[in-house]
Amino acid sequence: MKTTDKVLAGNIRAIARLLTALECNAPHGFQELKELYPHTGKAHIVGVTGAPGVGKSTLIDSITRNLRRKGMTIGIIAIDPTSPFTGGALLGDRVRMEKHNTDPGVFIRSLATRGASGGISRAALAMTHVLDAMGKNIIFIETVGIGQSEIDITRITDTSVLILTPGMGDAIQLMKAGILEAADIFVINKADREGAESLRVELQSMMNGKTDRPIFLTEALTDKGTAAVAGGIVKHRRGLVLHGELDRRRRLRAGYELTTAIDASIRDIIDAAMKKEIEKLADDVVARKLDPYSAAGIVFERLGALFKSNV
Amino acid sequence: MKTTDKVLAGNIRAIARLLTALECNAPHGFQELKELYPHTGKAHIVGVTGAPGVGKSTLIDSITRNLRRKGMTIGIIAIDPTSPFTGGALLGDRVRMEKHNTDPGVFIRSLATRGASGGISRAALAMTHVLDAMGKNIIFIETVGIGQSEIDITRITDTSVLILTPGMGDAIQLMKAGILEAADIFVINKADREGAESLRVELQSMMNGKTDRPIFLTEALTDKGTAAVAGGIVKHRRGLVLHGELDRRRRLRAGYELTTAIDASIRDIIDAAMKKEIEKLADDVVARKLDPYSAAGIVFERLGALFKSNV
Repeated sequence: MKTTDKVLAGNIRAIARLLTALECNAPHGFQELKELYPHTGKAHIVGVTGAPGVGKSTLIDSITRNLRRKGMTIGIIAIDPTSPFTGGALLGDRVRMEKHNTDPGVFIRSLATRGASGGISRAALAMTHVLDAMGKNIIFIETVGIGQSEIDITRITDTSVLILTPGMGDAIQLMKAGILEAADIFVINKADREGAESLRVELQSMMNGKTDRPIFLTEALTDKGTAAVAGGIVKHRRGLVLHGELDRRRRLRAGYELTTAIDASIRDIIDAAMKKEIEKLADDVVARKLDPYSAAGIVFERLGALFKSNV
Repeated sequence: MKTTDKVLAGNIRAIARLLTALECNAPHGFQELKELYPHTGKAHIVGVTGAPGVGKSTLIDSITRNLRRKGMTIGIIAIDPTSPFTGGALLGDRVRMEKHNTDPGVFIRSLATRGASGGISRAALAMTHVLDAMGKNIIFIETVGIGQSEIDITRITDTSVLILTPGMGDAIQLMKAGILEAADIFVINKADREGAESLRVELQSMMNGKTDRPIFLTEALTDKGTAAVAGGIVKHRRGLVLHGELDRRRRLRAGYELTTAIDASIRDIIDAAMKKEIEKLADDVVARKLDPYSAAGIVFERLGALFKSNV
């Protein structure tokens, strides 16, 4: 049986192996994904972003149980920050979600972020195709923090959920600056804490006229308010379809995926054929014999020569 | 007078213009940087990272005043998160640093993060060369949060400072996972809050034997403890030079800068010559006529053909 068929048949071991291949950027993983790709396009991709400690996992956990009761199947891709040195990932409070492991309607995968920028988003996107082909209806991508790469992910999901907590102070300023505009749904979690209502008012005033983006107050630990968030996601999807916006977002996502795939191919060529040369050039740059931009020009020309002989 | 000479002469308007060109990735900016590059290599680059609200600006402000008293000149590059849609930047509490504006020994520049991943790090690095050529002794790069791009920056500075505050909870878990290992100096700011000492103990136990990395407790708002951090940075630099580690880090940084410059050149070619084609391919990908990886292959071949005719 081919990997593709195994994945489509729901063979968990084959799926896990493929996901690992994608996470490691192994070429055979992407080769297998090509065959799987015609079976994708049905899942709804939901990005869940928020600073550490706002309760992303807990909220996804609660929403998942909610959507399961409505008969939907769920995929979860959790992106962990990882050491650039050891490559080891952390599981943390994600352990509490293990109870879903006995439910075949939920598939959870933790993704260790390593290597260059863009690598995470690339692997995470590739993984959504696998979970999509598995038949999962809704796929959550959980990202930590507020870095540039997180913004990228937020921009290319179908529905983007931003989680806040009362008393985040400076965080609000951040939101003003970008993530706020990229979010479709706002959740104020730990709403039993002081300041939840004033945060809601502040958020609302920031959005001015754009009142189509809902703000939900939740206490995810006790499932309070999370059913409304689940409903909000389903409703948002309906709106996207109605306004032709879903297609626009998917074109954006496809374009992004394409571009990162090209970047990765070029990086592979450079790594394979020019690593030593680049190290030597870097030495010259440090010694001020050469500036980084002229050095880049040299590599660029070499790349052209490689293309001439290889393509 | 050429831009290079103006910059070397400390002409603030010429410097600001060049920095803007670099921020916007304007080719002439990098052309001018080539001429400036031989005048660089003296400054010490310090990365300052921490979650929103830990007091990064306040700490840099206090350290700066301290280093100024020792006669050192300071450059500060503050990276703001920015809307991917509006391109607008936020200044926030950075306004309080304006008092430095009357001190010619301090140069502050805020960098709006926009566009693709890697773009910020690229612009920030390019800017350090300008401040370096201006003769600034220590250049701070202030980054928010814990995204992948921030890790990149942390990996390529000479000295990396991580700021924490008591009661950060989950944040510690994050640190375990990567940033912790990339940091050279730890600062527990707002140390008057409960939990500062236990955070220190926790950090220390995480580091096991690697006791060469100091942990400083500060209350940056009142300058408490910040002189020690300033001293710690100077001491760390001495250690780097002593162990030949400074050169290793600078080679890493040069390699990174080179690679991102190549990436940017390729991106430019693709944007200029293949944007329409990529959009069409993305449509086919959304329609499942084509998978993203085969589409990338098509673009890749076209790129090769472009190289053949252009290089």
